[in-house]
Amino acid sequence: MKLALLNELRQQNPIVFNISNFVTVQDVANGLNALGASPIMSEEVAEADEMVGLASAVCLNLGAFTQRQVEQIETVGKLANEQHRPLVIDPVAVGAVAYRKQVATKLLQEFHPDVIRGNAGEIAALADVSWQAKGIDAGEGDGDLVAIAQACAQKLACTVILSGPTDVITDGTRTVKVMNGTPLFQVHVGSGDMLSSIVAAFCAVEDDYFEAAQTACLVFAAIGELITKKTPNLAAGSFTVQLLDGLQLTTVDEIKTVAAYQ
Amino acid sequence: MKLALLNELRQQNPIVFNISNFVTVQDVANGLNALGASPIMSEEVAEADEMVGLASAVCLNLGAFTQRQVEQIETVGKLANEQHRPLVIDPVAVGAVAYRKQVATKLLQEFHPDVIRGNAGEIAALADVSWQAKGIDAGEGDGDLVAIAQACAQKLACTVILSGPTDVITDGTRTVKVMNGTPLFQVHVGSGDMLSSIVAAFCAVEDDYFEAAQTACLVFAAIGELITKKTPNLAAGSFTVQLLDGLQLTTVDEIKTVAAYQ
Amino acid sequence: MKLALLNELRQQNPIVFNISNFVTVQDVANGLNALGASPIMSEEVAEADEMVGLASAVCLNLGAFTQRQVEQIETVGKLANEQHRPLVIDPVAVGAVAYRKQVATKLLQEFHPDVIRGNAGEIAALADVSWQAKGIDAGEGDGDLVAIAQACAQKLACTVILSGPTDVITDGTRTVKVMNGTPLFQVHVGSGDMLSSIVAAFCAVEDDYFEAAQTACLVFAAIGELITKKTPNLAAGSFTVQLLDGLQLTTVDEIKTVAAYQ
Repeated sequence: MKLALLNELRQQNPIVFNISNFVTVQDVANGLNALGASPIMSEEVAEADEMVGLASAVCLNLGAFTQRQVEQIETVGKLANEQHRPLVIDPVAVGAVAYRKQVATKLLQEFHPDVIRGNAGEIAALADVSWQAKGIDAGEGDGDLVAIAQACAQKLACTVILSGPTDVITDGTRTVKVMNGTPLFQVHVGSGDMLSSIVAAFCAVEDDYFEAAQTACLVFAAIGELITKKTPNLAAGSFTVQLLDGLQLTTVDEIKTVAAYQ
Repeated sequence: MKLALLNELRQQNPIVFNISNFVTVQDVANGLNALGASPIMSEEVAEADEMVGLASAVCLNLGAFTQRQVEQIETVGKLANEQHRPLVIDPVAVGAVAYRKQVATKLLQEFHPDVIRGNAGEIAALADVSWQAKGIDAGEGDGDLVAIAQACAQKLACTVILSGPTDVITDGTRTVKVMNGTPLFQVHVGSGDMLSSIVAAFCAVEDDYFEAAQTACLVFAAIGELITKKTPNLAAGSFTVQLLDGLQLTTVDEIKTVAAYQ
Repeated sequence: MKLALLNELRQQNPIVFNISNFVTVQDVANGLNALGASPIMSEEVAEADEMVGLASAVCLNLGAFTQRQVEQIETVGKLANEQHRPLVIDPVAVGAVAYRKQVATKLLQEFHPDVIRGNAGEIAALADVSWQAKGIDAGEGDGDLVAIAQACAQKLACTVILSGPTDVITDGTRTVKVMNGTPLFQVHVGSGDMLSSIVAAFCAVEDDYFEAAQTACLVFAAIGELITKKTPNLAAGSFTVQLLDGLQLTTVDEIKTVAAYQ
């Protein structure tokens, strides 16, 4: 686990270009900024080429898109591949909404993602494993999460993050589990969106995207855990405030005191 | 007043599908999530049918729409009627902007709302009662708020919430007033949007929408009042944080200690 | 420096119509509202005429626009000129993205701004002075900030705010520098967007826009400075909360205790 990447990220302040979920866009921008990256967002295809050129990594959120945004996602995804920018995909709700799975499947034939980050229901859907998703939430199932993540990674030839109480990170061969976290991530809408963009920020400073992905998961989960230990009685509103503070202020040494992975 | 519905809602975690005001969409999602519901948002008509199918209630915010969004609102409203999902309408600024009143009037001929939630200026406009609205704010007038709300409810054959320092809830026959609240709701942009979606969440767990609506108003107003009593000197920023915490943590018993309605 | 304008603003509660950056729209609305103005937002050209009519000032944010939004920005800018509403422009990222500079340059031929607010990179781009911008951030350069701001103001015949650690405000002849502030503005995405809309709110209550602009800058910067003095250890999340509280609660007398300008 290359925790020193966090210091690297804060030093380099990489630009991350996000096609965002409109529900959580400000929160994601604030999260990236607090951590030490520089977020840019755009909805206009005419500047896609320049935006990708400016960025050190790209994160495409497939949540809440219109047909017009799908066209832009396709363009930006292809540009990221062409310009060799690491590309992170967040396939929001593909497990619950057939239309989204259909669009996501088509998009994944048009460009190649370096990392996919989703919950169990979303990753199972992309791996074509049956799973009971509920709306945008992960849903419940008895499937073997490691096997599902590995199946998805092998099918799509990329690193997969299946995030939840335990995050599973795999490139199809190597696999790591991150056990840090807090249930409060679930009362904060957009925790997953924020993590996806943070994964992109780590990919901007580390060429081995499996390493980047696992470090991003550990940093994010450990910061969530540390702030709940430091401030008892956090809830939906105060957790968000402390999370942004924690993203900015938490040091590598503090993360090491709670880091739990295998 | 069926306050036990709050526990019901938290147990069932109903999915609420929102066509949101783009200004306040994240706040509304966080509010629903904190209270114990599961928010989904979408701007794409191609998935409207599935989204309504997933949801236990639908809330359409008529604030800040483009012509394209109006088409989607019309589709989703009709689908909610067809699929028998409770439908809540928030007619933002129809009292101040003639264009919005015209669009809202046309939409209300295309589908039937179960509940309409607006401020005095908005409800007066829908009831065709004269009123002096100011921008998105309620404005001031000497009209009889109960009579205005009842006129609107009878005209549109639905439950109406005229919200303000005192909320008036009526189905045209039965009428309740909720006297809880705090002036701080007015320094938080989107308090009304959040309440509308919370009303939808209560309609998901109670078939008598007049009962659902009044309970939602009491729960929301009482939580606002309780947090200002617990934490003095709240202002625009800290109120929002405490409101989200309060939506998550406040119990039925705590609400009973301040509940004021007749 | 007419600090009494802050009291005037709070008394008049002017309506400010914003075409916003979708990333920061809620934050901007909350900031305006906390300060004492009344924000309205709209993306629909069909209501542009009414919206401008309702408003006492207009702020157009050129960040993150689609071609469709550009058409609306053009319409609203022309309407603001025709209806004699003060017009503030925020040229987000025109220093970093050639497409945005091209669009902004074209727009500025279609309507006349009363105030332009940008960072060094953005103002330099509009003034056609060379500068090294970085993404949406100001970038670094050795240029004479006062000369750059004056060149831009003379070229476009308006008041220019070049904001940064020191804000430079000039109408091409008169020039003021505001030295207040805090580095925490940079960890809060949308500080600049919020300031631009606050400038518009001050223009709604003061016809000399150079006076309005400098007062807005001093009020905003001094409130940021005051809250960091009052609450140590603020970071990305808690700063935003305190900033909104501060915008609502800070008095003219408190601002006078730290005001630093020349």
